[in-house]
Amino acid sequence: MTNNLKIFCDTQLGKEPLKRLREGVAPHELIFPSNMVNSPLAKSGPDPVFAEADIAFGQPDLANIYQSKRLKWAHISSAGFTRYDTAEFRAFVKEHGIMVTNSTTVYAEACAEHVFAFMLAQARRLPESLRARYENGTPDWLRLRHTSPLLKHQKVVILGFGGIAIRLLEMLRPFHMEVVAYRRKARGDEGIPVITPAELPEALAQADHVVNILPANADSDNFIAAERLQQMKRGAILYNIGRGTTVNQDALAEALRSGHLGAAWLDVTEPEPLPEGHPLLSLPNCYITPHVAGGHQGEPLTIVGHFLENFRRYLDEAPLLDRIM
Amino acid sequence: MTNNLKIFCDTQLGKEPLKRLREGVAPHELIFPSNMVNSPLAKSGPDPVFAEADIAFGQPDLANIYQSKRLKWAHISSAGFTRYDTAEFRAFVKEHGIMVTNSTTVYAEACAEHVFAFMLAQARRLPESLRARYENGTPDWLRLRHTSPLLKHQKVVILGFGGIAIRLLEMLRPFHMEVVAYRRKARGDEGIPVITPAELPEALAQADHVVNILPANADSDNFIAAERLQQMKRGAILYNIGRGTTVNQDALAEALRSGHLGAAWLDVTEPEPLPEGHPLLSLPNCYITPHVAGGHQGEPLTIVGHFLENFRRYLDEAPLLDRIM
Repeated sequence: MTNNLKIFCDTQLGKEPLKRLREGVAPHELIFPSNMVNSPLAKSGPDPVFAEADIAFGQPDLANIYQSKRLKWAHISSAGFTRYDTAEFRAFVKEHGIMVTNSTTVYAEACAEHVFAFMLAQARRLPESLRARYENGTPDWLRLRHTSPLLKHQKVVILGFGGIAIRLLEMLRPFHMEVVAYRRKARGDEGIPVITPAELPEALAQADHVVNILPANADSDNFIAAERLQQMKRGAILYNIGRGTTVNQDALAEALRSGHLGAAWLDVTEPEPLPEGHPLLSLPNCYITPHVAGGHQGEPLTIVGHFLENFRRYLDEAPLLDRIM
Repeated sequence: MTNNLKIFCDTQLGKEPLKRLREGVAPHELIFPSNMVNSPLAKSGPDPVFAEADIAFGQPDLANIYQSKRLKWAHISSAGFTRYDTAEFRAFVKEHGIMVTNSTTVYAEACAEHVFAFMLAQARRLPESLRARYENGTPDWLRLRHTSPLLKHQKVVILGFGGIAIRLLEMLRPFHMEVVAYRRKARGDEGIPVITPAELPEALAQADHVVNILPANADSDNFIAAERLQQMKRGAILYNIGRGTTVNQDALAEALRSGHLGAAWLDVTEPEPLPEGHPLLSLPNCYITPHVAGGHQGEPLTIVGHFLENFRRYLDEAPLLDRIM
């Protein structure tokens, strides 16, 4: 294929992963924006250097992509791609033959582990039991023991079916839970029942656990609002590792305050972090981690490794991993 | 078999489980001690009523058993059976043809879930991340993300191989971890490598996770003392859901204070609860739950169901479940 490709990289990777990346793409060349940013979710500004890029790796700015005459492939370093998930952008890349991939595979393992850690911490009531020093045989001790439901045979609804859900299903298998998934278009290869919007209320009414992995887009905005929360059964547990915008946080706070929901475990909120004094911060049954579900030891190397695997495929004109457009 | 069996029950079960038990054993008869106790680990005192019992269900007192002329079977309502695990008692029940069973099966699911919840909470760094409100892209946020190791392919040593370990292994399978077990006598059906005392130091030196499920007995007393803690690799995580007496708590506190161990997650201590001011209570990398690992919603019904299944086997002269002597 083409020689002397230029790869625009706007992700700050650290010394070792950058070395791995540089060696991995050689003899092709890395080019960098003048202002580097830390977060995979932050925007880098428009950059004239981008005009030289054949490939973009990171969080390429939309304006840069729209102005580019050379870009053939954009590899997004996050699993979320809200900014790119518009009709306008989809039409543009289709028209200009630009392929778009994301890094779902990089984060699926950690995200699935994170939400599963939430489920087990809730089931074993770790927030209370790690603070408790109850004596054997006391009423508090018996209450704590007897209010820890076993996951076995409980019911789960997964909202949003992608790489994370697939991995989570594998982790849940030894617990013989009843799992159904809700996704925009059922493909038939999910391995579990996929429910339609019409079937969702009934599924929510039965679920002990509702796991929200929805990405942020026009369809999912405010997806879990007062009505859907009311459809959930009393005491159900809500988990969110998708995007904060998919949940109406005022309605969630009310459902937690009233005890209609047993608890919520959130890795994402809107905004992040929540401002001091936000109602969700003071609810004793609301547990929040700061958007770290996908993080893991060696993450920058995993990101680079995933890009390099796709780069090899690009050079070989083979199908790219995690292609989203 | 014999008609009109008398079953001495010293476990406080609550109304519904007691009804289930009474109906389940009918037309045979339940008899009760005068002083009921709450904890499955507490002792009921000697009781003249016991002399009438053909079967004991609960935590039968040793003196009662030694004095009984009728007892044929003792079903212990806990998984632990330290009090009964002596050469003297074993000889006595053998001589008098008394069968002894315990309730391992009742607690295995919850215990395995509990220690697995510990492992995932540690891996996902929940104690820190549930308190953190770090902003995306800040050094603290990146540090938290990049210091959460994936369980996948990590190494585990399980000390004590019984019903809990078997269930834990099933739960760990989707994570493709390297697991070895240490048990007094390898039987060859463990499905994972079983290591000898001579091989233990090398295994401990490699393990990321050391899961202690040892029961309390003369062999396991102080099993994890300073020397074994030193054999563990720097940063390793120790879990204990066996018995508190198997760990030298002063040595553990020192290993946690020095940072040699990354963290300890304990469901059992010696004594329980630890007294105010105990060093383990103030160590930031020591996490303690109050001996609740086996507890679960519906636990009294599970205990009764397990006894009734064994009672049916007893009447049918079939092999009893969880027979320990």
